[in-house]
This record gives sequence, structure tokens and C-alpha cells, in this order.
Amino acid sequence: MRHAFASIEQNPYDRIADVAERLFADIGFQKTTIGDIAHELRMSPANVYRFFASKAEINNEVGRRLLAEIEAAVHVSIDHSASPSEKLRATIATIEKLNAQRFLSNQKLHELIERAFTENWPLVRDHVQKLDKLLTKIISQGQEEGVFHVEDCALAALLVRSACLRFYHPRILVEYSEEPEPTLDQMIEFCLAALA
Amino acid sequence: MRHAFASIEQNPYDRIADVAERLFADIGFQKTTIGDIAHELRMSPANVYRFFASKAEINNEVGRRLLAEIEAAVHVSIDHSASPSEKLRATIATIEKLNAQRFLSNQKLHELIERAFTENWPLVRDHVQKLDKLLTKIISQGQEEGVFHVEDCALAALLVRSACLRFYHPRILVEYSEEPEPTLDQMIEFCLAALA
Repeated sequence: MRHAFASIEQNPYDRIADVAERLFADIGFQKTTIGDIAHELRMSPANVYRFFASKAEINNEVGRRLLAEIEAAVHVSIDHSASPSEKLRATIATIEKLNAQRFLSNQKLHELIERAFTENWPLVRDHVQKLDKLLTKIISQGQEEGVFHVEDCALAALLVRSACLRFYHPRILVEYSEEPEPTLDQMIEFCLAALA
Repeated sequence: MRHAFASIEQNPYDRIADVAERLFADIGFQKTTIGDIAHELRMSPANVYRFFASKAEINNEVGRRLLAEIEAAVHVSIDHSASPSEKLRATIATIEKLNAQRFLSNQKLHELIERAFTENWPLVRDHVQKLDKLLTKIISQGQEEGVFHVEDCALAALLVRSACLRFYHPRILVEYSEEPEPTLDQMIEFCLAALA
């Protein structure tokens, strides 16, 4: 009963996103309609449209939440890493791990993320900008500590992200999952050598 | 007339592949049937099947020829490069340039190559193996000249290819063509720093 009350008190925006995420996981984001979401919530489609102007906005919000989970996990993994080199490795390794886990646990949710990356939805641009900022901060820290020696930390961050494309991009990492090499550790060592 | 005779004398395998490539460029590889190819050649479909067991084999042969053009251009560009660093840059730059040109000049042929890469057709595995061997040879040469210092030249070749994924992979390079950075030159400098 406590839980039921909490759910009633939750704001409608989050309730809609919660239900959408569940339906996306069950039947896929393309098959889920605003009508399905409204039906599950026992509200009218018109009420859903008060909070989301279109289905695309709901797709974007569910995708944003999924990437926010990855971002939160990255921050935890960085907090547990001592050196800039370890932080860099932890960032890419965590993104790869969570994307791979999602692909294995729910391919329908993974499809939403794949599509978002392929079509470069706004949530992906935000996510990638956050990742670039984080990598830039880690590389700057390494620069201050004398571990890295680069001219432009922001550019170095872009290069590391680009070099690690097959490990951080949700669709490409699935495509390359059958290719044993290079491993993520080998690629990180390569990047660390370039930064040193 | 000379040309017509030459064409008659050409072996049927190449004639079929020539016509298939032209039809693929005009209407796309998916819409082209064995019947269309036979009709253009004024031969029976059964005769086409004497040389290619399936449409998939024709797709593979046309794709192989397109990638062979890239391989030939890479070899020319390497012959014009003095140092191992320049050869490495020339290899990736030539692949990027020819893929981009094909995408701009004939998207239907580019689609065949994209599909071949996405589904990892045999011709792609051969092409990538050739590229890996070439990169390994260039890195070994740099190692002998004291420019590069790596433990394993074959692994270093894999890492360079992987780091340059957005420049050498026909589909991914199209997807990332709107992203101005990192440039190919920046990525090559990054790889050269890692190899040094």
C-alpha cells in the first residue's frame, strides 16, 4: 500500500516515462503508441500530450534516462579509481559493460539506444558532450600531475573517444562483439601511450 | 567494333560481374536479379549459374572488385610516401577518400559495400586482413628504422585500424561525416604518438 501511494504521488511526467520504459522493454519503442501508454496509466492520450508534445519526446526521455544510468555508473567507477590513467580506463570500460549488459538483458531497450545513436538524437549529443567534458577533465588532471603531455586536452578527449568507438558506441560495440581483438585494455594502453 | 569484339572475347565470369556492377549501380544490388543480369547478357539464367552458384556470390564478386580498387589505390599512395609515418597516413587517407568518393558518386554501390561490412561478408574479411598485413608491414619498417617502438607490430596494426574506425569503415565514415572532429590528420598524429 505504501508503494501504491508513492506511485500516485509521483509526478505525471515521471510516471509516463516509467510506463513508457516498461512498454518499450516489453514490445519495443516502435510498437508502443501514446494510446498504449495512456491505457496503462488509466489516463487519456490528451493527458499524456500535456506532458509530452509527441511520441518522439517520450522516446527521447526514456533514452535519456537509460544513458543517465550509464553516466551515474561512470561517476561511481571514477570515484573508485586513483590515477588519471585508471579513471580513463574506468570511464570507457563502464560504458562498454553497461551497454553490453543492456544488450544481453533487454535487446528492445538497447534498440532504442542504438537508434538514438544512429540518428544522433538530442539526448545522444548531450551524453557525448558530458563524456567529452569528463574525459577532458581526466586528461587535464593527468596533465597537471605530469602523467600526460598533450597540447590540447579537449582535442585529446575527442581522440580517445574516437579511438574507443568500438567500445563506447552502443551499436558498433554489438557489431564488433565477435571480434576478439583489440581488447578494451589494449586500446586503453594505446591511448595512454599516445597521451604520454 | 574493336570494343565489341573485346567484350565478346572477355571471359564470361568477368562479363557477368561487369554487367552486375552496372546494374547494381543503376538500380541497386537488392533489386537486381540473376534474370536481369542474364537478360542484359543475352544468356539464360542457367548459364549465369554455371559461373556463380547464387546471387550472393555475384554480390560478393562485385564488392570484391570495388574493394580491390581501394587496395590498388592504397598501394599507389604508399609507393609515393617516403617514411613509415607517411605510409600509415596515406593508407588510411586513401581508404577514406575512395569510400567518400564512392558514396558521393554512387550511393547504390556504396550501399553494397556498407552491407558487406555490416554483415562481415567473406570479401570484407579478406580486405581487412590485407589491410592489417599492410599496416603491420609499415609498422615493422618503422620499428626497424627506430621511428616506432612497439612490442607487437601485428597488434599495433589492429590498434591503428581500430582507432581509425570512423575513417576506414564505409558506413561509419558516412555516419560521422557531419562531425568535424577529430580530423583524420589529428587521429593519425595520435596513433603516431602511441607508436613512438
